[in-house]
Amino acid sequence: MLQIWALDGIGEVQEGDDLVALIAAAADGALQDGDILVVTSKIVSKAEGRFVRADDREDAITAETVRVVASRTSPTGHITRIVENRLGIVAAAAGVDASNTPHGTVLLLPVDPDASARALAAGLRERTGARVGVIVSDTHGRAWREGQTDAAIGAAGVHVFEDLRGGTDAEGRPLIVTMPCVADELAAASDLVKGKAAGLPVAVVRGRADLVGDLDLPGARSIVRPPERDFFRLGADEAHAAGRAEGYDLGWADGAASR
Amino acid sequence: MLQIWALDGIGEVQEGDDLVALIAAAADGALQDGDILVVTSKIVSKAEGRFVRADDREDAITAETVRVVASRTSPTGHITRIVENRLGIVAAAAGVDASNTPHGTVLLLPVDPDASARALAAGLRERTGARVGVIVSDTHGRAWREGQTDAAIGAAGVHVFEDLRGGTDAEGRPLIVTMPCVADELAAASDLVKGKAAGLPVAVVRGRADLVGDLDLPGARSIVRPPERDFFRLGADEAHAAGRAEGYDLGWADGAASR
Repeated sequence: MLQIWALDGIGEVQEGDDLVALIAAAADGALQDGDILVVTSKIVSKAEGRFVRADDREDAITAETVRVVASRTSPTGHITRIVENRLGIVAAAAGVDASNTPHGTVLLLPVDPDASARALAAGLRERTGARVGVIVSDTHGRAWREGQTDAAIGAAGVHVFEDLRGGTDAEGRPLIVTMPCVADELAAASDLVKGKAAGLPVAVVRGRADLVGDLDLPGARSIVRPPERDFFRLGADEAHAAGRAEGYDLGWADGAASR
Repeated sequence: MLQIWALDGIGEVQEGDDLVALIAAAADGALQDGDILVVTSKIVSKAEGRFVRADDREDAITAETVRVVASRTSPTGHITRIVENRLGIVAAAAGVDASNTPHGTVLLLPVDPDASARALAAGLRERTGARVGVIVSDTHGRAWREGQTDAAIGAAGVHVFEDLRGGTDAEGRPLIVTMPCVADELAAASDLVKGKAAGLPVAVVRGRADLVGDLDLPGARSIVRPPERDFFRLGADEAHAAGRAEGYDLGWADGAASR
């Protein structure tokens, strides 16, 4: 049986707040060995003071961008930019968040969500005595599918993959390609109890203590697919345009030489 | 509090099995109004007899394919095909499944997972008296991220999106672009209790009765992003190659005319 609930009473997080203290107080002694806390990246960013003036939003997105994956301008002039940020995460607007932030500000992602998760997990283990894991979650759109799901952008003390690749199925055949991303599944599950508008930024998942481990397990950074395994490194329009420009130059040279 | 557990005792599903009867028996009177059942597509396919000879796997993938999105051959000769199938779902190998199937066979996706979900939800509501929702889940890889998560390919009696677009955040600003795909989040959450190798194909989610509704709610087909909103309709390599060919012809003509 898996149980998931949101912690009440965390309230509005301010720059410099001690999240370990806030979460431990909200948990009120209820944390147990093997619990996994899923913490919305928004409160991590707020505690880290990652605010930027809303007027600078487009500049902030540009600054957070390592690589533009795809970009489109809607008929109404709204620009959607899907970019890879310095963490390797592909997300709309580089994860820059304009909801539930103080008026006139937007919020950047935490500087290093794996490090934030590690600090939270270490602090909560020390303060509560419970061997917990921590996931830092963000809300992501997906290719091919409408809507968003929460995913893991930081993790510590918890396995991000359930590695079944060495296992066998019920018929004894190797499960060669199956590697569930349990960190993303935990983040998605937790979104079901948080409620985007309700201000419940931390969920506790109880019932998968087998996924909790040492603080030096690989973090969410290991979820990022390396370029050589990424079939969708560029949006279709962008890749088509790049190929068209390359082909044009080649064709022009051949055409000019043909006469 | 969200509670999620897998139903014991469903056993190996055979062609022609009555899934309503099997699930109701396994639930053993425990289902309540507002419960959501997440049913692995594999057992729906098995009950529907969607077996194909393993020797015909590549042909089966081709037959299920409406459109190739991306394809690569590894150095070892293994071909990965990411395709859109007749349901609009983009998935590796068109969802054709070779694990946990009888020797010498592979399994196609259900013919119409939304219809399968509707039949299950209607049957379970009638048999148990509980107003339940049903999601049919499949395991999907993702763009940009390693590993897989379970997602919804069929749904009935449950809202697939939690539509917050008309709502406001805690500061009163409209939540314009937030539309959590709760069906995918429910599928992902349920994978955490099923265990790929353990033969637990049905999970019950209790605690989000607000998501359960009439049987004629839009199904999982509504999750499929329409082409005009899909930035990743082609793999980067495929789009680049198509652009290059187009550009070459244009360039050749211009080059030839330039002299």
